[in-house]
Amino acid sequence: MVLRLDSADRDFESRFRQLLEGKRESSQDVSDTVAGIIADIRTRGDDALVELTNRFDRTRYGAADLRIPQDEIDKAAARVSDEVRAALQTAHDRIRAHHEKQKPTDHIYTDPLGVTLGTRWTPVDAVGIYVPGGLATYPSSVLMNAVPAKVAGVGRIAMVVPTPGGQIAAPILLAAKIAGVTEIYRVGGAQAVAALAYGTATIAPVDKIVGPGNAYVATAKRQVFGQVGIDMIAGPSEVLVIADGSANSAWVAADLIAQAEHGAGARSILVTTEKGLADSVAAEVDRQIDLLPNPANAREGWHDYSAVISVASLDEAVVLANRIASEHIELALDDPQSILPSIRHAGAIFLGHHTPEAIGDYVGGSNHVLPTAGTARFASGLGVLDFMKRTSILGCDPMTLSALSQAAVTLAEVEGLDGHGRSVSIRLNR
Amino acid sequence: MVLRLDSADRDFESRFRQLLEGKRESSQDVSDTVAGIIADIRTRGDDALVELTNRFDRTRYGAADLRIPQDEIDKAAARVSDEVRAALQTAHDRIRAHHEKQKPTDHIYTDPLGVTLGTRWTPVDAVGIYVPGGLATYPSSVLMNAVPAKVAGVGRIAMVVPTPGGQIAAPILLAAKIAGVTEIYRVGGAQAVAALAYGTATIAPVDKIVGPGNAYVATAKRQVFGQVGIDMIAGPSEVLVIADGSANSAWVAADLIAQAEHGAGARSILVTTEKGLADSVAAEVDRQIDLLPNPANAREGWHDYSAVISVASLDEAVVLANRIASEHIELALDDPQSILPSIRHAGAIFLGHHTPEAIGDYVGGSNHVLPTAGTARFASGLGVLDFMKRTSILGCDPMTLSALSQAAVTLAEVEGLDGHGRSVSIRLNR
Repeated sequence: MVLRLDSADRDFESRFRQLLEGKRESSQDVSDTVAGIIADIRTRGDDALVELTNRFDRTRYGAADLRIPQDEIDKAAARVSDEVRAALQTAHDRIRAHHEKQKPTDHIYTDPLGVTLGTRWTPVDAVGIYVPGGLATYPSSVLMNAVPAKVAGVGRIAMVVPTPGGQIAAPILLAAKIAGVTEIYRVGGAQAVAALAYGTATIAPVDKIVGPGNAYVATAKRQVFGQVGIDMIAGPSEVLVIADGSANSAWVAADLIAQAEHGAGARSILVTTEKGLADSVAAEVDRQIDLLPNPANAREGWHDYSAVISVASLDEAVVLANRIASEHIELALDDPQSILPSIRHAGAIFLGHHTPEAIGDYVGGSNHVLPTAGTARFASGLGVLDFMKRTSILGCDPMTLSALSQAAVTLAEVEGLDGHGRSVSIRLNR
Repeated sequence: MVLRLDSADRDFESRFRQLLEGKRESSQDVSDTVAGIIADIRTRGDDALVELTNRFDRTRYGAADLRIPQDEIDKAAARVSDEVRAALQTAHDRIRAHHEKQKPTDHIYTDPLGVTLGTRWTPVDAVGIYVPGGLATYPSSVLMNAVPAKVAGVGRIAMVVPTPGGQIAAPILLAAKIAGVTEIYRVGGAQAVAALAYGTATIAPVDKIVGPGNAYVATAKRQVFGQVGIDMIAGPSEVLVIADGSANSAWVAADLIAQAEHGAGARSILVTTEKGLADSVAAEVDRQIDLLPNPANAREGWHDYSAVISVASLDEAVVLANRIASEHIELALDDPQSILPSIRHAGAIFLGHHTPEAIGDYVGGSNHVLPTAGTARFASGLGVLDFMKRTSILGCDPMTLSALSQAAVTLAEVEGLDGHGRSVSIRLNR
């Protein structure tokens, strides 16, 4: 049975809080192992990378085999069916078109005093993209990570992907080719992250590493942070559906299942003003899960981590939504615009009955790398800005320096930084 | 003697690399102590906060004393001299005016297919600002951290500042008042960070914590990251001055000293095309350091971590600048615009002979919280965007959903996520 809550219940607040604070991940502490692997890569470079790769992936590569040659990428890409190729191209083109609109503009101006002030944006030089291998085959993630970097103007995009038993899914290589990834290496785990961060003879170091991975990969990213930039550490995926009486219970159920099937602590929450809908969706989910070819993940996500919550009004629903700060929020309402402005914290919002979250996962155009576990309170999804950085520009002439000098010297004095004050005053009265 | 390098020297590359990779911080590992403090605050709340505060700051506060009452703030603020008050107000107004221009605009549009797509920006609800106490009195840092949050629209700005022996500098309180900080607590260290992240009876939890601190504060910020957002962990401050024959050696020397006087591993590097300038600046720095009331920090920074580098051309200087990716870069040239576009990695760039970096520290208007230790390769200075987050908006109608459905269902199949495909196809053909 899925957890059922009603905001009218006396114990609602404590049970809702329990839901919010419930653990959805086992926090496996692999820091020491990972620190050892990173140190090994830094000391022994390619030798360590080859050894660790062959050990963990059961392969027999030499250093020369680590980079996948272009003709191997081309051949694999050619094997992909026309249908999948067309779908990937559609996804790529839509993601690219939307992200083009995120490109920031420089803004350099002269203020009323005459001081030159401004912000200039430049791309990161080189980015590393981690792509999980093995059973999981997510070419859409390759697009979602590589396209914003490409749009930002990143010159070098190096992808790493483990190949357990030497196998790699062809759509992954095709997606990388379509997105304009410049290099692909068949390495994974903490050793791949370390190689990207510090470089080896085969892999030149990058400036920023993005992409999802297991506990070893996530821990390695945390540990190399500072040497390189990293994206958010992704937690279990989640959706919040806000529905009123206008919602279709079978559609809402399908969306809740789509989220729950991610497994690994994935969560679906329905908040509805319509008691009848709460009941019918709960029944529908159980019915539809049984229709899935592989129902195990969805069943676990639904029964262990999800909830159906009845509320008295959409205002109440909004309050809960802002406390949950969900990665995805669907507004299954005839008039989603009525509450859209009140929802302050969400990774992405899907409007109305005809926007299932899965459209955003693939072909909507927006990014599917989004803040999880309530981090939408302070974090954003992946975008072009994550692959660029701002430089401040400041310029004075003798006149403006003179006009600002007294305030600067006074504050330097207050802060006990006499050298600061002197660097201003030495330029005056000449 | 300061380190002298010449790009024409045979061993230049190895010595430059040594300079780049040299350690400037002792990496004190206080993780276990900090983890203990955080756990204690989470378990015992105010009781632990009061105990730890009184122990480390040698005070005798009760929980009711932790928040500084408004009349105490007002009285302290009134004690500040008119000159300092005017300087802080000037700094505030200029910082505010510049940061207003960083406010992002929402962009929601309908694409050619008819899909609603967009990006919406919302402020973080509550921010915590850490302000170091004791000997260091940096009211300018209060402004640089609080003003961007205020401009972003953050409703609640809670400041924490340790008061060793019960003392706090009045200008710190005045700066907080001018900037519109909503609450001030006299607590510091890892316990203050933990209280901001998890909340106690006295301090409501915040969503993001910014501001500099010692090893305990930095480690606590790393450990609470995920529960709340954090800013970059600041390393030692640094300046790179690029100068040609048009530079004034006394002015350049003063700027190098201003950076070096920060102590704690602070670094100043001069790169110049003019051999004579390299010599005269080196001599000037030693001469001017002796004029400082407290020369110790500047002397240590200059002799232990700094360098004077001769190069053959400004092109060479730019190559080195992009490898250093300095927090601050001064272009001490008659024509700074000539190389400005080539400098790809810098926290802030100061143009020409009349823009000492210290102007940017206080009253230029741009932010002085900037990426250090080469992280300008991938990171930006603090700004309004750090206190806001983006939400993606996506909306389909039956027509656009139908147009996108085949590509979405195909990709869901490739990825083995049948529930994703079903959530799309269940909406078709009705």
